[in-house]
Amino acid sequence: MSYHKPEAKTVQDLKDVAHKLRIHSINATEASKSGHPTSCSSLAEIMSVLFFQQMRLNLKHPRDPSSDRLILSKGHAAPILYAAWAEAGLFPVEELKNLRKIDSDLEGHPTPRLNFIDVGTGSLGQGVAVGAGMAYVGKNFDKADYRTYVVVGDGESAEGSVWESLHFAGHYGLDNLCVIFDVNRLGQSEATSLQHKMDVYRDRLEAFGFNALVVDGHDIEELCKALHCAESTKNKPTAIIAKTLKGKDFPQIEDKDNWHGKPLGDKAATVIKHLEGLIVSQNVKMTPKKLCKMAMAPEVDINNVKLCSPPNYKLGDQVATRLAYGTALAKIGADNDRVIALDGDTKNSTYSDKLRNAYPERYIECFIAEQNLVGVAIGAACRRRTVAFVSTFATFFTRAFDQIRMGAISQTNVNFVGSHCGCSIGEDGPSQMGLEDISMFRTIPGSTIFYPSDAVSTERAVELAANTKGVCFIRTSRPNTAVIYNNDEQFTVGRGKIVRQKPSDEVLLIGAGITLYECLSAAEQLEKECVTARVIDPFTVKPLDVDLILEQGKQCGGRIVVVEDHYQQGGLGEAVLSALAEHRNFVVKHLFVPTVPRSGPPAVLIDMFGISARNIVCAVNSILKK
Amino acid sequence: MSYHKPEAKTVQDLKDVAHKLRIHSINATEASKSGHPTSCSSLAEIMSVLFFQQMRLNLKHPRDPSSDRLILSKGHAAPILYAAWAEAGLFPVEELKNLRKIDSDLEGHPTPRLNFIDVGTGSLGQGVAVGAGMAYVGKNFDKADYRTYVVVGDGESAEGSVWESLHFAGHYGLDNLCVIFDVNRLGQSEATSLQHKMDVYRDRLEAFGFNALVVDGHDIEELCKALHCAESTKNKPTAIIAKTLKGKDFPQIEDKDNWHGKPLGDKAATVIKHLEGLIVSQNVKMTPKKLCKMAMAPEVDINNVKLCSPPNYKLGDQVATRLAYGTALAKIGADNDRVIALDGDTKNSTYSDKLRNAYPERYIECFIAEQNLVGVAIGAACRRRTVAFVSTFATFFTRAFDQIRMGAISQTNVNFVGSHCGCSIGEDGPSQMGLEDISMFRTIPGSTIFYPSDAVSTERAVELAANTKGVCFIRTSRPNTAVIYNNDEQFTVGRGKIVRQKPSDEVLLIGAGITLYECLSAAEQLEKECVTARVIDPFTVKPLDVDLILEQGKQCGGRIVVVEDHYQQGGLGEAVLSALAEHRNFVVKHLFVPTVPRSGPPAVLIDMFGISARNIVCAVNSILKK
Repeated sequence: MSYHKPEAKTVQDLKDVAHKLRIHSINATEASKSGHPTSCSSLAEIMSVLFFQQMRLNLKHPRDPSSDRLILSKGHAAPILYAAWAEAGLFPVEELKNLRKIDSDLEGHPTPRLNFIDVGTGSLGQGVAVGAGMAYVGKNFDKADYRTYVVVGDGESAEGSVWESLHFAGHYGLDNLCVIFDVNRLGQSEATSLQHKMDVYRDRLEAFGFNALVVDGHDIEELCKALHCAESTKNKPTAIIAKTLKGKDFPQIEDKDNWHGKPLGDKAATVIKHLEGLIVSQNVKMTPKKLCKMAMAPEVDINNVKLCSPPNYKLGDQVATRLAYGTALAKIGADNDRVIALDGDTKNSTYSDKLRNAYPERYIECFIAEQNLVGVAIGAACRRRTVAFVSTFATFFTRAFDQIRMGAISQTNVNFVGSHCGCSIGEDGPSQMGLEDISMFRTIPGSTIFYPSDAVSTERAVELAANTKGVCFIRTSRPNTAVIYNNDEQFTVGRGKIVRQKPSDEVLLIGAGITLYECLSAAEQLEKECVTARVIDPFTVKPLDVDLILEQGKQCGGRIVVVEDHYQQGGLGEAVLSALAEHRNFVVKHLFVPTVPRSGPPAVLIDMFGISARNIVCAVNSILKK
Repeated sequence: MSYHKPEAKTVQDLKDVAHKLRIHSINATEASKSGHPTSCSSLAEIMSVLFFQQMRLNLKHPRDPSSDRLILSKGHAAPILYAAWAEAGLFPVEELKNLRKIDSDLEGHPTPRLNFIDVGTGSLGQGVAVGAGMAYVGKNFDKADYRTYVVVGDGESAEGSVWESLHFAGHYGLDNLCVIFDVNRLGQSEATSLQHKMDVYRDRLEAFGFNALVVDGHDIEELCKALHCAESTKNKPTAIIAKTLKGKDFPQIEDKDNWHGKPLGDKAATVIKHLEGLIVSQNVKMTPKKLCKMAMAPEVDINNVKLCSPPNYKLGDQVATRLAYGTALAKIGADNDRVIALDGDTKNSTYSDKLRNAYPERYIECFIAEQNLVGVAIGAACRRRTVAFVSTFATFFTRAFDQIRMGAISQTNVNFVGSHCGCSIGEDGPSQMGLEDISMFRTIPGSTIFYPSDAVSTERAVELAANTKGVCFIRTSRPNTAVIYNNDEQFTVGRGKIVRQKPSDEVLLIGAGITLYECLSAAEQLEKECVTARVIDPFTVKPLDVDLILEQGKQCGGRIVVVEDHYQQGGLGEAVLSALAEHRNFVVKHLFVPTVPRSGPPAVLIDMFGISARNIVCAVNSILKK
């Protein structure tokens, strides 16, 4: 693919469009009285060339699976992204003045409330992972020609997550990915640490496996050439490292400190006049390239994913829920070839390797880099191209909390599976124990949290998660637990199960995972003392089966004991308390891990940290007095 | 400082000691029936040289502020670290067999329950940040000769946090820091992505500002020489990139897959016999270098830190709590020269720049890299060298949840200050809003959470945090709020304030930050409808003033409305519910942000998302019927 220099007229038009984008960015941030016009200005030529010379877009269907993708990782430059889509003709330019208004989706940072945005950005350093996920899918699953562009700010390139993703893209040779660094030298509160040391950026990117091109980011021809080079470079991704100026062409503002995140105010009129003076054709109008002569993305159906065969256990079988997860993953993988798994070098512990063993091409090894792991999964699930399951130890998802939080803003449907929850993992000690994971995933808006206790319910949790919108989290356990459900038992999101009951029950016990079994064992012991207890398995912690708990709790005299292998805050216990908040006459004993645990045998730890059957019996005896 | 090659006898002794460390690691993991002997073995020569040739240690006081520091970032190799300290004479070698036992502090991964450990490791990729924090303090505050060594696994070097920290160390020229990469090629579930590509490691490290030395990690002389080179290299940190083999010198196991995290079992005896055969002097005994001829670390007193002058506001003054934070920070900085601040390029938003303006040398700019920001703070606070305050937007601490979680295991006293909480930040939109921060910090064992509502209480929160053990979190707000406390008001951790009351009160309102003012405003409106409401400012969310809430709640008929600018889960509301769990006859209405907010004016958002005075009035009217 040889390079044809754009004609002089095209170059001039692209320059003119860049200045128009600058003007739109100023006007929009003036109207909203907040925003980042100087961070937009450094990007103007880059956006002009991307939209009107390089990318293939479908304006009738901006999320066309075959069209090129653009992630604006530096989300605070949203106004120029909106301006580019408006100039391209997606919506009227006048709407740009609704920036940041309560009734407009042109928010301060991009979100998929807009039909041309794939993921929310604004928490910095997350765009490359998402772009890498899209590019991986494009190259390996869709085998299509669409390309993925990510625009990264130099400030955010200090985020380690960026380097995780660059390594990933380099390792997998994602030549359909192009990362553009807008090196405008200035951060929010001072200059970036590398300022304009373009050689350092180049050395780093080359060392991370990129075709690294340093360009003048305000030179249209250099940008066109570099983007062409990116497109024709095989087996490695390209980084375009663009030397730019913050507030470029804003007289007295360009390259100056203290202009981050500020509208131009009384300087706006002068700057706009100056910019207008730079435009040669005032009526310049360009249109993006259409999708043509391209290998299109195939049609994909990810609805109604099913286990290819029902659970197949015997009551009483001892099976770890983490193992049942692997089994179920391979089963839904057999049903739908868009089911994929991602893991961070823990696949032989989480059992995601069961999918890899069955379908090696559908497993993405992300190595020990959980932020990128999550970001790639979010990218892979965009535009409904895949059903992504991402697994690691439950506690290591804390590493990607910010990515998961942004995942909710991005309306992602990624499924998270965290193994090794709680102190019941034993000897490895507290650094490996998930004791805050339920709390973390509960705070994610719209999330669904499965905490299955046996193998049958785990398989159904996986099947349900595959078909549930929003972030799903499945918490799996390390120890074996007995199968307590028949293979044909039905499970539903938000519906718990009564696993033990008598008419005489005086207290309701709620546990999940290993603590469900401690509850059952406690109930057994209590019966010898002539106290009968009802036991509930909530199945999902969010949504919680509030009706079931209220009704069964009332039948048990309003006495409830909740037991969880998790810290006190934000877990199953507080979920139950929230469910009961507006009801008088309940009393709840909450047993939880009260402090940092230590290394030791699981059974000893469970008892030492207060969540064993023995502790439950004590709690019941105490609550019966209330 | 010229290099003197160690004598042949010393080299042989160091080799022998390395093999002894291997044998100890095998015996310990055999006794515990779990652990990572092969990950220890690749490190044996490195540990031998560090402990018995390089580091200056004080065996009577392992955390002597003047002694060299060692962070084993790859914490799963704990057995060889324990073995080295035992061989050095700190405790009997026999104790190594108590590895991972419930009554031993020799846990599966290192924690500061041991007197020779500074920070917990085991969640990978966090050691370099901690080491960089220690080195920064050593070079810039202590101005002492101690050196800091960090041992990093090759698997964990995929973590972006590692690269954030390497950049930080390079940027600040931390020549007292030496990072040793144990490149043993094999991860947990497969080979690392870079395997033994030593050139790639070198190129990356050089590009990140390091003096990068590739060595044979099993060659004692090469290691000695490299460590000497590290010590004599000025103005840049050194990376020793050691090519090693996992399971080195374990016949049939060395460099083989599927031996991660497994004791040798029935192969142990053969391997030990082989290793014993490699030892020349069976009774070899070496001792670490003592502290001598060194610039010692100065005495430091960080007890009883005070505001140098009391709060100085007028009742009704409009002051954002984030601004009061900056003011207070500078005031405690004036009182104690070991008060330091760290920020991630948000200092002009969080107002940590107030300390920087007063004492530039005590401010550490960490740029946009929150994981490293938190890790450096934890390192800086180690051995009680500094009182560290680390600030950014509250929601961006989610980026460092894993580091904060490990901070609790590390028994850190770092103070976290999160600004821009809640939807009340307005137009910037959801990516910038802290709506899960209270939940996150509440799950941290032993944490204290301040949520001050006015400037006076904020200043006292800062003073209290400086003197409170464990993780402290101060949540500050963006909008101005009225000063409601007199300058001489006393504040205590765990004690709330009644800010409005009448004997006729029928409902208790609990709010903090901006919602406290919404509660006050609602109470005002309700009074016009002849309903009087009591209002409580909790001051600390954790510990919560349970007695106050119980007593005042009872006086108000058990009717409580809690309002917070935070999601439902794990915040102030669920903290209140936890406090009431074991008490019947309370009914709680919880107002919270129910879903992902959007861009818009703060007052509009507060009302739209259900936490305004108007919403509170509705909630009160509804709860009065219960």
